[in-house]
Amino acid sequence: MSTVVGALIEKIFSETCSNRDGELADYIPELAAVAPDSFGICIATVDGYVYEVGDARLPFTIQSISKPFTYALALADRGAEAVGEKIDVEPSGEPFNEISLDPTTERPRNPMINAGAITAASLVAGPDVESRFERIRGTYSRYAGRELTFNEAVYASESHTGHRNRAIGHMLRSFDIITGDPDEAVDLYFRQCSIDVTCRDLSLMAATMANNGVNPVTQDTVLAPVLVERVLSVMSTCGMYDGAGKWLYEVGLPAKSGVGGGIVAVLPGQIGIAIYSPRLDAHGNSVRGVEACRALSTELELHFLHVTRAARAAIRARYSVSDAPSRMRRTPIERATLDDVGKRSRIYELHGDLLFAGAETAVREIGGVDENLEVVVIDVRRVDEVSGVACRMIETLRGTLARGGCAVAFVDPGGLLGNSRSDLSGDTGRVFADLDAAVQWCEDVLLDRHCGSARQPVSITVAEHPVLSALGPEQLDRLTRDLEIRTFDHGECIVHRGDSASGLFLILSGKVSTTITDQSGSTYRIMTLSSGMSFGEMPMMLDSRFLNDVRADTTVTVAVLTPERYAYMASKEPELKVALLERLASGAYEQLDVMLRSLLRQGNGD
Amino acid sequence: MSTVVGALIEKIFSETCSNRDGELADYIPELAAVAPDSFGICIATVDGYVYEVGDARLPFTIQSISKPFTYALALADRGAEAVGEKIDVEPSGEPFNEISLDPTTERPRNPMINAGAITAASLVAGPDVESRFERIRGTYSRYAGRELTFNEAVYASESHTGHRNRAIGHMLRSFDIITGDPDEAVDLYFRQCSIDVTCRDLSLMAATMANNGVNPVTQDTVLAPVLVERVLSVMSTCGMYDGAGKWLYEVGLPAKSGVGGGIVAVLPGQIGIAIYSPRLDAHGNSVRGVEACRALSTELELHFLHVTRAARAAIRARYSVSDAPSRMRRTPIERATLDDVGKRSRIYELHGDLLFAGAETAVREIGGVDENLEVVVIDVRRVDEVSGVACRMIETLRGTLARGGCAVAFVDPGGLLGNSRSDLSGDTGRVFADLDAAVQWCEDVLLDRHCGSARQPVSITVAEHPVLSALGPEQLDRLTRDLEIRTFDHGECIVHRGDSASGLFLILSGKVSTTITDQSGSTYRIMTLSSGMSFGEMPMMLDSRFLNDVRADTTVTVAVLTPERYAYMASKEPELKVALLERLASGAYEQLDVMLRSLLRQGNGD
Repeated sequence: MSTVVGALIEKIFSETCSNRDGELADYIPELAAVAPDSFGICIATVDGYVYEVGDARLPFTIQSISKPFTYALALADRGAEAVGEKIDVEPSGEPFNEISLDPTTERPRNPMINAGAITAASLVAGPDVESRFERIRGTYSRYAGRELTFNEAVYASESHTGHRNRAIGHMLRSFDIITGDPDEAVDLYFRQCSIDVTCRDLSLMAATMANNGVNPVTQDTVLAPVLVERVLSVMSTCGMYDGAGKWLYEVGLPAKSGVGGGIVAVLPGQIGIAIYSPRLDAHGNSVRGVEACRALSTELELHFLHVTRAARAAIRARYSVSDAPSRMRRTPIERATLDDVGKRSRIYELHGDLLFAGAETAVREIGGVDENLEVVVIDVRRVDEVSGVACRMIETLRGTLARGGCAVAFVDPGGLLGNSRSDLSGDTGRVFADLDAAVQWCEDVLLDRHCGSARQPVSITVAEHPVLSALGPEQLDRLTRDLEIRTFDHGECIVHRGDSASGLFLILSGKVSTTITDQSGSTYRIMTLSSGMSFGEMPMMLDSRFLNDVRADTTVTVAVLTPERYAYMASKEPELKVALLERLASGAYEQLDVMLRSLLRQGNGD
Repeated sequence: MSTVVGALIEKIFSETCSNRDGELADYIPELAAVAPDSFGICIATVDGYVYEVGDARLPFTIQSISKPFTYALALADRGAEAVGEKIDVEPSGEPFNEISLDPTTERPRNPMINAGAITAASLVAGPDVESRFERIRGTYSRYAGRELTFNEAVYASESHTGHRNRAIGHMLRSFDIITGDPDEAVDLYFRQCSIDVTCRDLSLMAATMANNGVNPVTQDTVLAPVLVERVLSVMSTCGMYDGAGKWLYEVGLPAKSGVGGGIVAVLPGQIGIAIYSPRLDAHGNSVRGVEACRALSTELELHFLHVTRAARAAIRARYSVSDAPSRMRRTPIERATLDDVGKRSRIYELHGDLLFAGAETAVREIGGVDENLEVVVIDVRRVDEVSGVACRMIETLRGTLARGGCAVAFVDPGGLLGNSRSDLSGDTGRVFADLDAAVQWCEDVLLDRHCGSARQPVSITVAEHPVLSALGPEQLDRLTRDLEIRTFDHGECIVHRGDSASGLFLILSGKVSTTITDQSGSTYRIMTLSSGMSFGEMPMMLDSRFLNDVRADTTVTVAVLTPERYAYMASKEPELKVALLERLASGAYEQLDVMLRSLLRQGNGD
């Protein structure tokens, strides 16, 4: 157990432990026979870790804590509308076992009082009471992540003494809220209340709600997210019997208690809480359970309306390809063009959650930029979650920009923007997995528009290679004879980190990337080179080793001056060597500059 | 107006606009005389942007929407406990103007029914009714961000016809809920209900609540955060009269309506919503207001229990100084030591909000690592918000690690970890503004522990400089005479980007950093160099320009070989030149490797 959080919970546990107020439920002998001072607190996280303090694994009957789970099952089986015609969702000022319906609607006021819970049980699908109970037990088990068992003795007692609930059943039948056999519905309700759980089980059941209906340990989807929201709403207003307002005011967590001594509480998206302590207050809630919930909420700041902060702007960085060029080496004419028109691009790095408010901030700013913009990249790699409405808003923005002539690309390796991706492979936009690839595309869009005819051709001859442009025809002719033409396949590694100088490589066609792999095995692309560019000059010039891997991104043709030919040439024509070296070294050194800018900017954001 | 979001709101506006159900309030002539089909929707963001559709600037009286704001004022003036003795927070099943108290508590059930609202008004501090009203009007104005005015005519009518409210006032007085003059309290209540607002005003009042009590335009703190939470809780359960459960179930936003035709709703941390449409349903809520709220909640996914996702792990990256060294150049013996013991360090980059659940994930992992760990850096630069409990949890973790002999540093330029910072300047931990500085500290801790005696001394002589170690005594002697000793003050720029080669700089004492400044003026540190290291070799060797600024981080002493002396020496002793160059160039090239790893890792996270 983590000392830090364990200690926080233990402190609340021991502060609450001294409270011995309240009495055991005694309407059946089994409830009156439990150890009155048993006490457990469990907190389960949405990644499935459970903090357990005290009697975390002592079984007791779930009782009324079953109500939200059966209500959820009824909603799943019959739909929210059909269930809504049978059960309201209004807090009731009356005791949980009142034999009455709302006088206006003639329905049970909510599913957390017995009348509503019996109705919910009657709505669970299945051919007979046995199979319907088995569905209920099976479903609770999926919430808990283990097979829960049925307590025959408690059931027998509940069934023996449950006249009040039978009265409710017949009242429901007389108002046609229940249309089948009311005794069967009540029997099903008795059975669901008699399922044994532990405090640990309940914390995982609550954590499944907190985790949007997915059991955090088994990853089993037990309830649809839209129904989680509904059930938690009802637990917020009706879960703690009378005093719902005070509960929300002071504790601020959707919760449910049972006369068995359990309480569950849910902090959506974060944790499930369960407490077991069987002494009850006058409302039928666990005395220590209520006190511990209040302390947990206050000390761990769990109130669900706790606004720690306003939503932050979703845009964490904005810049152009002038500020942060891609790691694609560009020819001098391309570089000059980008210096000129680079400001007509904008890269936006978003972060945080893109719910309505975050998306609103983003589309407001991106949609409001000046009209000279020709290309936009929206990077959502650091976005945690995108809501449906945020997806639609961004798609609308993309459409608006596209109609204004602005190309849009997304960096979205996780596919967060969802099914809008398939629409984006056309002329107006692209989806990239990698920011630098998107920035490179951004530059290509500008280059196609502004220096299309002057761009570096895809394939060149040796004589056309810019590195050799300073040579006279005879020198060029002699050197060409010394070059070996080699071809590499897509994906092939041309040189490895640590290789000794293996030659000067002049790229004639295709693209290569220099990459680095760290100790953890992650590979990072440093730079992409294309026809007219070169690599290997630094190791050869300094007679040192390659620092990076160089890999073919496409089929690549290179002209290679081997170290042997270079040494031979250098001895025969020292001035040719010097001319070549000077050009190569200063080019490589300048390129360092572009790379540093690219790395620093993209790494540090704004 | 942003087309994207504006269009979303306009769509809901026009879909709702066709609904002409409901009747104007007619208990006073002023309310019956308004244009019945007026309709406005405003949404204000927590950064103060307001979307306005329809009759956004038409004034109407605030009526019952005043209730939460006066309740908030009473809480601020008297404290939650004193107010709690006068007014409960339970939803009421009864009409808002019922002349009765809760039979058990003998208090108004909540501050959103008239009895509770009149009680709240009676609790506003001030010497007389005039000054108390002025405080109320002034406070509402601060929520709205402009001076709100008083509608005399409505007030006169309310006052003339308000017998029911006077009856409530006297009932409250007879139960000693009001202790002063009940007519005065009722008069104050009539006045507060007669303040004119627009739909735009109300959206900003709601956004102030959403923004944790701070007006998003004026930045005026109108209400303490702890009270915002309280008021929103009561609005959640009691704001929409009867039907609170259904409201929470279907709309899921704390809200308040008024018979003037207004509704406000708050999405904590995100937005304030206001709707104006004066036709009312049987409950006294605006018909279109309720419908538009429901549509906004559904279509913009605003339900406050909407769990879009489970909280993500707060740790976005974890690595050691072996994976990502600092940009501090190290001597060979230091580098060897770090290769050996670097794994005993761990850098954790956190992100997102550190509320309880996020902090729990972080301390669980960091506290659970193996016992060989000697130094930990926790980087909270990308954390948006830290709750109080998260601060305490991290401080506890730090203490536990420190007791186990593990040093801890934080990267926390924003001071998010708050007042625990002052405790951290001692032996056990440090606070840094910059990740690389913290990583460097991390390395220093390991080096102090594992190669203390063999570390590069703080100050060396020219003869001790490693670059010159290959020279014989005579060569060293001749070279030493060619070197100029220069001293630079802390902060002084030694060379500028773009400078031509100005010499080979051998650092004898102090530290320098190479930095780069991008087009937006942001400066990034590339590397830090200390005694025994050198710079300027690449430009001099290649006869090119400096790519970076080099700046003194402390007082710095360097020995400089000027280009002139270098050229002279090279012509006289070519073999000395070559020996020097080779050593310099390969060292510089190797150093590139460290820098690339540092930049790529820190930039890309995990």
